[in-house]
Amino acid sequence: MKTIIIGSGSYIPTQITKNKTFESNEFYNPDGSLIETDTHLVIDKFKDITGIEERRYLEAEYVTSDMAFFAAQRAIENADIDQETLDYIIVAHNYGDVEINSPQSDTVPSLASRVKQKLGIKNPKCVAYDILFGCPGWVQAMIQAHAFIQSGIANRCLVIGAESLSRLVDKHDRDSMIYSDGAGAVVVEKKNNTEAGILTHASSTYASEEAHFIYFGTSNKRMQKDNRRYIKMYGRKIYEFALTYVPEAMKECFDKSGKDIKDLRKIFIHQANEKMDDAIVKRFYRNYNLPIPKNIMPMSIGELGNSSVATIPTLYDLVKKGYYAEHQLHSGDLILFASVGAGMNINAIVYQMP
Amino acid sequence: MKTIIIGSGSYIPTQITKNKTFESNEFYNPDGSLIETDTHLVIDKFKDITGIEERRYLEAEYVTSDMAFFAAQRAIENADIDQETLDYIIVAHNYGDVEINSPQSDTVPSLASRVKQKLGIKNPKCVAYDILFGCPGWVQAMIQAHAFIQSGIANRCLVIGAESLSRLVDKHDRDSMIYSDGAGAVVVEKKNNTEAGILTHASSTYASEEAHFIYFGTSNKRMQKDNRRYIKMYGRKIYEFALTYVPEAMKECFDKSGKDIKDLRKIFIHQANEKMDDAIVKRFYRNYNLPIPKNIMPMSIGELGNSSVATIPTLYDLVKKGYYAEHQLHSGDLILFASVGAGMNINAIVYQMP
Repeated sequence: MKTIIIGSGSYIPTQITKNKTFESNEFYNPDGSLIETDTHLVIDKFKDITGIEERRYLEAEYVTSDMAFFAAQRAIENADIDQETLDYIIVAHNYGDVEINSPQSDTVPSLASRVKQKLGIKNPKCVAYDILFGCPGWVQAMIQAHAFIQSGIANRCLVIGAESLSRLVDKHDRDSMIYSDGAGAVVVEKKNNTEAGILTHASSTYASEEAHFIYFGTSNKRMQKDNRRYIKMYGRKIYEFALTYVPEAMKECFDKSGKDIKDLRKIFIHQANEKMDDAIVKRFYRNYNLPIPKNIMPMSIGELGNSSVATIPTLYDLVKKGYYAEHQLHSGDLILFASVGAGMNINAIVYQMP
Repeated sequence: MKTIIIGSGSYIPTQITKNKTFESNEFYNPDGSLIETDTHLVIDKFKDITGIEERRYLEAEYVTSDMAFFAAQRAIENADIDQETLDYIIVAHNYGDVEINSPQSDTVPSLASRVKQKLGIKNPKCVAYDILFGCPGWVQAMIQAHAFIQSGIANRCLVIGAESLSRLVDKHDRDSMIYSDGAGAVVVEKKNNTEAGILTHASSTYASEEAHFIYFGTSNKRMQKDNRRYIKMYGRKIYEFALTYVPEAMKECFDKSGKDIKDLRKIFIHQANEKMDDAIVKRFYRNYNLPIPKNIMPMSIGELGNSSVATIPTLYDLVKKGYYAEHQLHSGDLILFASVGAGMNINAIVYQMP
């Protein structure tokens, strides 16, 4: 019995925020000292490392669950199913619904309940819940849907990743330029008598000194009126952590599948930082004594930034629908999903296209 | 293959908040009008309906994940296991860590990661995530642990429910008197060749007009300085909803087990409101043409209030450890867990004591 993806959808907010938007920002270091370097140079360096030229911000009138709904609607349409047949709606996010200019996260009811309501699904047996697992939340939600299918609890699940990090950024922190908004969704279902689907998966949580590498902290600019907290990270530590553990997690997951590495067609990696993603995939192949194959890794970070849980399902949807000429998916193709983020969590899935 | 509970623990905050604490509160209706009734009478009526005489508030220096950790530590000790053998840590909550006097919910990293860090578990294969599913979150997390065990992903899981509703209350809302703080946890594991363990389970999400019966809203007292939002509910609607759907959900779950209703020994129901819980269980037995058996339903709400996801695991722990003379659990006993809450979600588990 396998778990296969039968449809996908995404929502890319229309508000394009280019790097030059940040030119007038006053950036401070985490210790509160002003960054004296010219902001243009700060932005150039940022661009070199992360690969980000622009990112998307959610329209002011929407919150995360709206985006989750838009992506879900498209995934259901793409799957061409009766939405009343869904057994689960799982939404991966990390901050709930945050209205513009509000410091509060709204998580009750769950975002999954809100999506179910917006979709108009009546069937009470369609169970809606949220998972918090940092950026790897959508991949983990896929693993949970797979577990429900394997254990006979579900036949068909809607798995969504949605986040609006623009509502959580400290504009005095250079790292704020990384964050973006978006939502991606897939419908998965049980399939018998097939080689395709989820072949293997792996998950881990590093919660010793790593637990707070991504955290909730006050502004880098001291003496703010309030104690409002924002998304914060220790970028250098995360980079080193990811390089140390992600390639081996990907290899462990891939090797469990029993497949030949030369048959791997695409790697859908969390769009965290271009240099980091390149280095992870390079090290992954080095573990097989191979160079990085051409066109192995579709990347959206340049235009879409880091939208947390949304990056992988959004990228999958774009590739699946032919958005990138150099990246095509064919029946039988082996692909690898891999993510790393707050927790610190790492996970991966080896999947064969039906 | 079955899923059995091998240990439990709970944390009951030490700060006892009696009904008289609210005597000086100014209560307003949801429409903003002042409730002119004498506050003593408001409190007496509240006590008659909910059964609550006092509730517990978390100590000022702690947040929800601290409580979750305390309960987890006790459950692990009670299970007498090496904590490094845990495959999953699942924390059910709804509002994250809310510091005293802060309007913000801190959910990154997940509370499960924080608990793992506090416990000092090093094994990265122990996966830590949070689930948001309203008050029924702990029961749902149990069902998820069961699914992981059934599908071969896990052998042993720590399942925690923790909430600090005192950090979310609008003191101008009468309903604020219901809410309480607490944490409960169990360790579950796979067991072969046993009749005991989780026999059946059922879950549902009613997200049409019901989705926002419990919601995040501004103070009943208008003209507050800020737009801070608090936990809010439509009590009357929830009462009617629960009476309509919970007894049938419990019956559906129980009947799936193939057991005789006369063999059911205890019902651990979410401690939402004493009158509502009594009415639900009365209707449940009426569906079998039976009166409510004596001592079928342990209740903690009088002293502990409604601590959301924490009520059932806390109550189970207290009963298991002999806190209530009239409620004893014996090997082979059939018990039923049942919950209802924000989403609106309903779930139940039929469990046989090992």
